[in-house]
Parts: sequence; C-alpha cells; structure tokens
Amino acid sequence: MRVYDLIRKKRDGGELTEEELHGLVAGYVAGEIPDYQMSAWLMAVYFRGMSPAETRTLTLAMAESGDQVDLSAIPGPKVDKHSTGGVGDTTSLVLAPLVAAVGVPVAKLSGRGLGHTGGTLDKLESFPGFRVDLTIDQMVERVRKYGLAIAAQTADLVPADKLMYSLRDVTATVDSIPLIAASIMSKKIAGGADAIVLDVKVGQGAFVQTLDDARQLAEMMVEIGRSLGRKTVAAITDMDQPLGHSVGNALEVAEAIETLRGRGPADLTELCLTLGVEMVCLAGAFADRETARRELEACLADGRALSKLRDLVVAQGGDARAVDDPTLLPRSAHRYSIVAAQAGYVQRVGALDMGQAAMLLGAGRAKKGDQINRSVGVEVLVKVGDQVVAGQEVVRLHYDNDAHLAEAEALAKRALQVAERPKTPLPLVRAIIR
Amino acid sequence: MRVYDLIRKKRDGGELTEEELHGLVAGYVAGEIPDYQMSAWLMAVYFRGMSPAETRTLTLAMAESGDQVDLSAIPGPKVDKHSTGGVGDTTSLVLAPLVAAVGVPVAKLSGRGLGHTGGTLDKLESFPGFRVDLTIDQMVERVRKYGLAIAAQTADLVPADKLMYSLRDVTATVDSIPLIAASIMSKKIAGGADAIVLDVKVGQGAFVQTLDDARQLAEMMVEIGRSLGRKTVAAITDMDQPLGHSVGNALEVAEAIETLRGRGPADLTELCLTLGVEMVCLAGAFADRETARRELEACLADGRALSKLRDLVVAQGGDARAVDDPTLLPRSAHRYSIVAAQAGYVQRVGALDMGQAAMLLGAGRAKKGDQINRSVGVEVLVKVGDQVVAGQEVVRLHYDNDAHLAEAEALAKRALQVAERPKTPLPLVRAIIR
Repeated sequence: MRVYDLIRKKRDGGELTEEELHGLVAGYVAGEIPDYQMSAWLMAVYFRGMSPAETRTLTLAMAESGDQVDLSAIPGPKVDKHSTGGVGDTTSLVLAPLVAAVGVPVAKLSGRGLGHTGGTLDKLESFPGFRVDLTIDQMVERVRKYGLAIAAQTADLVPADKLMYSLRDVTATVDSIPLIAASIMSKKIAGGADAIVLDVKVGQGAFVQTLDDARQLAEMMVEIGRSLGRKTVAAITDMDQPLGHSVGNALEVAEAIETLRGRGPADLTELCLTLGVEMVCLAGAFADRETARRELEACLADGRALSKLRDLVVAQGGDARAVDDPTLLPRSAHRYSIVAAQAGYVQRVGALDMGQAAMLLGAGRAKKGDQINRSVGVEVLVKVGDQVVAGQEVVRLHYDNDAHLAEAEALAKRALQVAERPKTPLPLVRAIIR
Repeated sequence: MRVYDLIRKKRDGGELTEEELHGLVAGYVAGEIPDYQMSAWLMAVYFRGMSPAETRTLTLAMAESGDQVDLSAIPGPKVDKHSTGGVGDTTSLVLAPLVAAVGVPVAKLSGRGLGHTGGTLDKLESFPGFRVDLTIDQMVERVRKYGLAIAAQTADLVPADKLMYSLRDVTATVDSIPLIAASIMSKKIAGGADAIVLDVKVGQGAFVQTLDDARQLAEMMVEIGRSLGRKTVAAITDMDQPLGHSVGNALEVAEAIETLRGRGPADLTELCLTLGVEMVCLAGAFADRETARRELEACLADGRALSKLRDLVVAQGGDARAVDDPTLLPRSAHRYSIVAAQAGYVQRVGALDMGQAAMLLGAGRAKKGDQINRSVGVEVLVKVGDQVVAGQEVVRLHYDNDAHLAEAEALAKRALQVAERPKTPLPLVRAIIR
C-alpha cells in the first residue's frame, strides 16, 4: 500500500478498501504517514466524500486505534448519548440522572471541549470536589452501585481522532460530513455502549446550519452505528436560539437542577424527555414510548431524577449540597441587565452571538488548556415568539470583571431582535431518525 | 494573513489576491508555512483550479522566490525554449545550435530531470569533459563569444518550485494544469529570456494525454508569459509515438548530430524547424516565417548548424571529435533486435512503453541522484504508418547487461502494433498558439 495511491484514488473519486483505510489510519497514528499526505487525503475527501462502506470502515479503524472500553461488567444494555454541540446545551446534565432514575445504567465518557462554555466535565466541576478522572474500572464500579457515572475520556481513547481532528482544524477540512460522522461515531464505538442516541443540532449556533446537512449527518451516523452492531437513533433539534435560558457553566448546572425538579425551561425539559424516551426504549426498559415518557415525567415530578444527580455528585467525591441549594454554586461578582428597547415579539435570539458573549465573559476556552470561569455567562430570559414590553429585562450578563463587558453587551443586543409582528418559533425537534 | 483562511478560500472556490499568493509562497519557502497546510491548499487548487490572474501571480511569486538571471549583457532579444517532456525528445540538442547559427543568442538553463532518459544536461555529458556547471557570468561570456551556452540551473533558481514540486509529487497534486503552468513558467521567467517558445507534448508518452488539456495548458502558459511581458508562443505536438528513432542519451546525441547534418528523422527535423522558426521570429531576426524557415534549412544543409554544436561542446570543455565521428560517443556492449512478427502497417508505437523499456535498460533515473547509463537505450526503426515485412528488424535494444532485457523486450513488443490495414499517423504539430 502506497499512501500516494490512496490519495490519488480518493482524488479521482474512487472507493478505498477496508485494508487501505485500516492501513491509512494505523500508519498515521504510528507516525509512518506524514501530516502532509494525510491533509491532502482529507482535502480530497472533502471534495469527493466517502461511501457508506468507507465511512463505516474509517469509523471502525479510528475506534480501534486506541483503548476500547469494555462495559460488559455492567448488567443490561448500556446507552450512550452524544450532542453535536450547541449553545446552552445542558441536556447531558439532566439526561444522565433522568435515565438512571428509571433503572437504565449510564456510563458516560465526556470531553472538555472547546467553545462558548466548557463541556459537561467543566460544568460538573461546579460542584466542589467533583472528580472526573476515573479509571474505567472505577467508572464501572460506580455505575454498578449508583446506576450512573460521568468520567473524562482517557488519553488513549481514539488517538486517531485526536490527531486527525487537530490536522483538520488547521487545514480547513473540518466541514466534511463523513469525516464529522466518523469522528463522532469512532468515540461512541470505542466508548463501549450497546446503543447510542444522537442529538444533531441544526441552526446558527450549531456545527451544521442547514436541515439538509443535519439530516445527511444524522442518517450517516445512524447507518454507521447500526452497521457496527449498535442500536442508534438520531434526533435533529433546533439550535437557532440557545437551549433553555442559561449559557455558562454553573448557570447551566443550576438550570439542570431546576429541570430535574420539574421546573426547568419548557424547551430544555421537552428535549430531555424526547431524548430520554429514545434512550430508555433503546435499552428495552419500556414496551412503548408513551409509557416511557409518563415514567420519565414522573421521575422529574417526584424527585427521583434529582436524587440520581445527588448520587452522581456524591459518588464522584463532590459536595452535593448545591443540588438542594443552587445558591451554593459558583456565582459571579456582578450582573448587568439588558432591557428591551421596544415592545413587540422576540423574532430572533442568535445562538452564536449569545455563545460568543458568554465566551467573552470567560465561560469558554478558545484553545486547549485555557482556564474557564465557571461562574460567568449569559442568561437569556426570553425565547423566540415571546411578547415583551419596552424596558423589560431580556438578557442578564453574569461577569466578574468588565474587560469585555461592552463587547458582550453589543453581541447580546445584536443577537436579540424584537419587532411588532408575532413570531412562531421553529419546532424544537425537527426530525427523529430511527 | 492566516494560511487557514487561504486554504478555506480556495476550497470554497474563491480567488486569492496578489498579497495572499505572495505571502503563501514566501511563507512556504521561508519554512513558516508547514507542508501539511501547503498540501491541503494544493489539493484544493487541484479541485477548484485558479483564475488567470491567480496563475500569473503564483508564477511571479515563485519566480521571485530565488535568484533571477540577468541576461542584459547579451545584446539583442534572448529566446528560451521549453518542452513539457516526452520520449526521445532530442529537440533542444538540435535547436540551440540551429537557432544560434542564424545569429540569435541562446542562453539555456536546463535540468537533469527524472524520467525515461536523462535531461539535456545528461545527454550533453555524452561528450567527454563537457561541463554544465557554469556560473551565470560564465554562461553570459560564452553566449557573447559563441552565440550559445547550455548550463545547469543553479540551486537558487526558483526554490519555491523545487519545494512545491517535491510536495506535489507525493500528494497526488501534480496533475493540475494551473500548477503545471506556474511551475514551468516560473523557471522560464526567472531564466531571464525576453521571449519563450513552448513545446507542449500531447499523447501517451506525455504529461498531458488529451488535446483539450494540452490546449488549456498551452493557452494558460502563453497568457502568463505575455502578462509578465514575455513574447510567448506554444506549439502542441504529438507524443503518442517517440520523437525520431532514438530513446537514450548518447543515442539521442547521435540522432541530433545527424539532424544537424540535414540527415535526421523527418519528424524530428520538422519539429526543430517549426520551433526554430518561432524562436528566431520572436527574436525579430527575420521579417517573415518563410524566410526564416529557408535560412534554417540552409544552416542544416551547409554545416553552419553542426558547426555551432562543435562551438558549444568546445566552449564548455568537451571533446568535440564525436560531433564529426559519432562512433566516438558512449556505446553499449550489446544490441538485441526485435523483428516484426507479421507483415503489414505499423498501427502504433507506444511512447510510454518504449520510454519505460529504455528506463529498464538504465537510460533514466527513477529518483534524484540515481546513476544513468549514457550508452543504453531503444532504437525504434519504424514510425506509425510505415509498411513492414515479417522478420524485418523494427526495434533495436542497446544494453550493457541483461538483467532487465526480457522485460524491456516485452514492453517494446507490446508497444509496437502491426496490422494489415494502412494507417495514417497523427499530425506532428497539432496546433500553434501565438
């Protein structure tokens, strides 16, 4: 196998064989294939795409490039969940306890991620003492005992994805749907779950902006998962406006707690129930979706879901008092209110601008290793379609110092548009691909 | 300027500005832009192409990346000639003396090249003692005194092309017409000539296989040359069968000598006259093409052209006795005859196979620094359309050892097809683009 021939084959629209793709990934991870050949191949993939068979094989080759998690010591089917990422996406913090509350085990590996806020791990660390650096054995032990655990991906999970993603990031080859699908699914496959629920975000604040692209990505991932023996379902959900009201680490934890109490924002609650139903049904816990949904709603209403969050925090060494008293969570020094300049209906709450405002205040990281501030962020008090009066508080900025406050304010103001005509928001769940 | 943005812009079909292209080339030559970003950009160019303005700017940026030759000390317009390369392409060895014979100065920088045989420099070194490592000053001095000189490109001529070509060669990004055009023209521009005649080969033994591609490349190069202030003409000529009869270094030198005596193969003679007419007319030496052609033919007939070859060899330290007695040129130990298996007409003489046969016998180099054997090669005694009888010698292999003789024989036999029906060969000169 000559790498040159693989580049040329893809450049000319050919389909790589299993042997060729495994050789390419293994050679790259071993450092035998130089970056300059891999980047040329990736750009050829950008233009030529990959067949379903190629995408599945690439996913598997990547998944097999490092450690693979064995969850077989946990009884029953294990379900994982993945979101392609958005602004104010607090679902994992709600879903893990919610699904565990009905007896479906959750063993979740998460990343810290780059972006407008930290990842799930960063958010959980808002509980003082919360430990995410569990070994796989420690994670399995906690899932067996408490029904759930959320831990950091080990360094050796899918090294091929780490290397390829870093290269794609500097060679303008990120925006390729088969490469995105293989990157996401390789981590899910290596993570050891039997079933996978994917939340593919679409809209201004998401990785993909059009419904067509989202559908293509969702269908490709469902196909990869199934062809590799995992039950897989994908929901395509709106990310034109932020999910819920909060964009920021501790702010989102507080919002997750409210949601687990049954008092969360309607959109966040609805999305968690939708995804939760898919997860518990894939796990075979309920005979039908209606029963599953009723039971999950009951867990939010009667405190069982919140109780599972308490279990999670305690089991991983955290101070769980904040679960019952969110005022104990990290809190910024200052708050700044933005009010509606005119009366009318909210036409638009730009997710990307709101996310960038949160990032400017210190909630996210621009590059690996950057410090994040857990207390700061943006609260968006209104949703698209809401009626507001002039002077009504619509956005609240939580900040510790005012270095970038004016910029964040300008972004938030630009993001929020009010006009006289009523506005119907886009549906939250655009499609479910089973 | 972020390189990422330039890759993305080209990926998305945008047009790079002068500043961006100069920055890209300068940054790459300086080692500030890594290979993996350059190769991604080159692959994007492969798919998206480049506008005429981009191609011209890239050419200029490459030409300016190193030394630029100043030929102003030589009086009158200087004309350079370039062939895109083929099998048995002996034209430079004939053209330089031929054009110099009518008083048009020739200051030619050549490469050693990779391929089925050596380059012009390797062929000239068949004259014992011939020196190609002249400084620019030494080259200029010889042109002033003898009317011609052929020297090796200095290491600092167009370093951008050396670096980019090496990268393209291992990333399947060679076959891009704008990149080929910029590579060729950057060397011609840096070479200092006032006018340029391009011989764009088309066919099985050439870089480009279709007339459409050849025309596109030729037109692009003519456009680049003109837009950078050089009179430029391109001929598109056949390379389906080898040019002349000889494929090999000393074999081609002997053929060039025969041609300069007016006794060369018809196709080689015709091509040299065609290109020679364009060269001397671009230099303004003659009022019209007919007069120019008559005068060049006279130089072949009366020994003036051959005399210039003698001058060239002597001026560069070579033993010129072989000019008058070609049996003194390097000669292989053995010869092997291939005969026609049947009577009929020659349908095809595959240039690529004949070239590879010569390479197998040791006439060319597969990689930089490989040794070549000047004495070996392939003589193709027939041309497409010739009538042959069964048992007639059609190919003669010149070899020193028989390590690859059987393979070379098989290739030569495969290349040569004879059938009963008469066959009209393709025209030698397919188009001239002025």
